[in-house]
Amino acid sequence: MTAADKPMFERLALIGIGLIGSSISHAARRHGGLVGEIVGSSATEKTRQTALRLGLVDTAYATAKEAVTGADLVIVCTPVGVCGRIASDIAAHLQPGAIVSDVGSVKSAIVADMGPHIPEGVHFVPGHPIAGTEHSGPEAGYAELFDGRWTILTPPEGVDAAATEKLKAFWLGLGSKVEVMTPEHHDLVLAITSHLPHLIAFNIVNTAEHLKRVTDSEVIQFSAGGFRDFTRIAASDPTMWRDIFLNNKDAVLHMLKRFGEDLSVLQGAIRDDDGDTLFRLFSEAREVRRGIIEAGQDTASPDFGRLARPKSAPENG
Amino acid sequence: MTAADKPMFERLALIGIGLIGSSISHAARRHGGLVGEIVGSSATEKTRQTALRLGLVDTAYATAKEAVTGADLVIVCTPVGVCGRIASDIAAHLQPGAIVSDVGSVKSAIVADMGPHIPEGVHFVPGHPIAGTEHSGPEAGYAELFDGRWTILTPPEGVDAAATEKLKAFWLGLGSKVEVMTPEHHDLVLAITSHLPHLIAFNIVNTAEHLKRVTDSEVIQFSAGGFRDFTRIAASDPTMWRDIFLNNKDAVLHMLKRFGEDLSVLQGAIRDDDGDTLFRLFSEAREVRRGIIEAGQDTASPDFGRLARPKSAPENG
Repeated sequence: MTAADKPMFERLALIGIGLIGSSISHAARRHGGLVGEIVGSSATEKTRQTALRLGLVDTAYATAKEAVTGADLVIVCTPVGVCGRIASDIAAHLQPGAIVSDVGSVKSAIVADMGPHIPEGVHFVPGHPIAGTEHSGPEAGYAELFDGRWTILTPPEGVDAAATEKLKAFWLGLGSKVEVMTPEHHDLVLAITSHLPHLIAFNIVNTAEHLKRVTDSEVIQFSAGGFRDFTRIAASDPTMWRDIFLNNKDAVLHMLKRFGEDLSVLQGAIRDDDGDTLFRLFSEAREVRRGIIEAGQDTASPDFGRLARPKSAPENG
Repeated sequence: MTAADKPMFERLALIGIGLIGSSISHAARRHGGLVGEIVGSSATEKTRQTALRLGLVDTAYATAKEAVTGADLVIVCTPVGVCGRIASDIAAHLQPGAIVSDVGSVKSAIVADMGPHIPEGVHFVPGHPIAGTEHSGPEAGYAELFDGRWTILTPPEGVDAAATEKLKAFWLGLGSKVEVMTPEHHDLVLAITSHLPHLIAFNIVNTAEHLKRVTDSEVIQFSAGGFRDFTRIAASDPTMWRDIFLNNKDAVLHMLKRFGEDLSVLQGAIRDDDGDTLFRLFSEAREVRRGIIEAGQDTASPDFGRLARPKSAPENG
C-alpha cells in the first residue's frame, strides 16, 4: 500500500467480537480502503480463537485497554450494560485524536455512561447500525449485514463535526446509509421501531408457553399461522435485550402505554362485534407495509421469500 | 386417463379463488391424480377471467350453486363471514355423497354457520390449512404453499369417518401434513398461534402510525430493527381477519387477557430495573424458537434468509 492509498483508519479496535463486531470486520475487509489493521478484544478465550481463525482480527486481546492502544478508531460492540465500565477501562489508553464509538441500541444511556470517561482530545461519536439477525457470536457475522440498512450517529453536543463526518464516511463504506440525530430522538424512534416489537414478541412467546389448555408441541406444530415470526425476533440475545430495556426505560414504558391503549380499542371492537372498526384499523396497518417495501427496507416477496423461492411463487403480489 | 387411473375426485369446486383457492388448484394439478376437473366460482368478473387465464379452473361460474353442481368435492375458500350464506345458497345443489369442506381459520363458527344447511347424505368436513402469505387474490397462489405445513380437519360429531379419511388423503396429496381435532380445540390452538399474533401485529403497526413525536417516515426508514416483521403480518387481508376475530371472539379475548397479564410482568420488571426477570423470560422465549426449527416449521437461516442469501452468510447460526 502506498502513501496515496493510506486507509481511512490505520488501526480499528473492536471491543467485543459478536454478530456486529464480526460483521464490521467482514464489511471493512470487503471495502479494502477503510482500515489498515483490525484488532479486537474479548474476555472469552474461545471467542478470541474463533476471531483469529476466521481472520476477523489480526490480533486478539483479552482486555479492551490493550486493544485500543494505538487505535485511531475504537468501536465498542458489547451489550449496552457494560459500555460504561469499558469506557472507564480504556480511558487512559486512548490515543489523542482517536474516534470512540459503539453500536448499542440505546443512545442516551450510552452518552451518560461512556461520555464522562472519554478524555479531552478523543472524539466520542456513539452509533447504532439498525441491522442484525437473531443469531449471536463471531461466527454469525457477514459482510452484507449493513448493506442498505441505516446507521444512526448521535454525537453529543460539542463533538468535533469532522469526527462525525469521518465516522459517517466509514459506515457508508461498510455499505450502510447514515443519519445523524440526537440521542434522545434516537431512543424514541427505536422504542417504537425495535424495542417495543421485541418486547411484544418475547411476551407472546412466553404467553404461549404458559398456556395449560394448549400443549407446547401444538404451539410449535401449528406455528406457521403467524406465531413463528414472533419467535424469530424473540430468539435474539437475552443479555443484549435485558440491557436495552433497562437503558431505554422511559421511552419503552411510554410506547407500551400507547400500545396498551390501542389494544384496548381492538379488544373492545372484538367484544362488541364492531367489524367496521376492525376492518378500518386493519386496512390502515396494511398501508404501512407498502411504505416499508417502497423504502427498500424489506422484501416484497411473499412470506419474506423464506420458501426458498419456488419457481411458481410470485415475486410480488 | 384409464379407469384404473380414476382421480380421487372427479370434479373439484372451489368457491372463491383467492390465495388459498388458487394454491389448491396449483397443488392439485401438480399431483395429477387428485382431481379430474376443477371448477370455481367468484362473484367478481375480473377474478373469473384471471382464474381462467392462469388455468386455475376449467370453468369459472358467477355463482356458487352452479359450481357445486356435479362436484364430488366442494371447498369453500372465502372469508369466514360469508361461509354460512354460501352453504345456504349451495345446499339444494349439492350432489349426494359429495364432501363439503372449507379453509377458514376458525372452526366452531363454521360448524355452526354452515352445518345446519348441509343436507343429509352430503359429508361436511371443515378444514384449515395453516399456510399462507400476506398476499391475496388468484395470482398470489402457488403449488408449494402447503408443502410441509399442517392442515387441521375438524369433522363434527357423526360425520362419516371414510369421508374424513378421503379428505385427509386429498390434503396429503397437496403436500400438507394432516391432523384431526375438535373445532373447539382448533379455535383455542389457533387463537394463540395465529389470531393473537396477528391482532398484536395490527395493533403495534397502528400504534406506530398514531405517534406524534416520531414521524411516519422515520418509522418506515428504521423499521429493520424488528418493526418490519410485524408489518408483514399486518399486511394480511383485512376482511379475512375481521371475520376471524368476530368468529373466534371468546378464545381470542381469553388469550388477550393472558397476554396482558404477562405483559404487565414485563412492564413491572422494566419499571423496577429487575434485569434478572427480564433475562429469564427472554431466555425462555429463545428456547421456543429452537423447537420450531427442529420441528421443520421455519427456516434456521438468519433473518428468514431474506438477505437473498449472500455467499458469506451462514446457513445456521
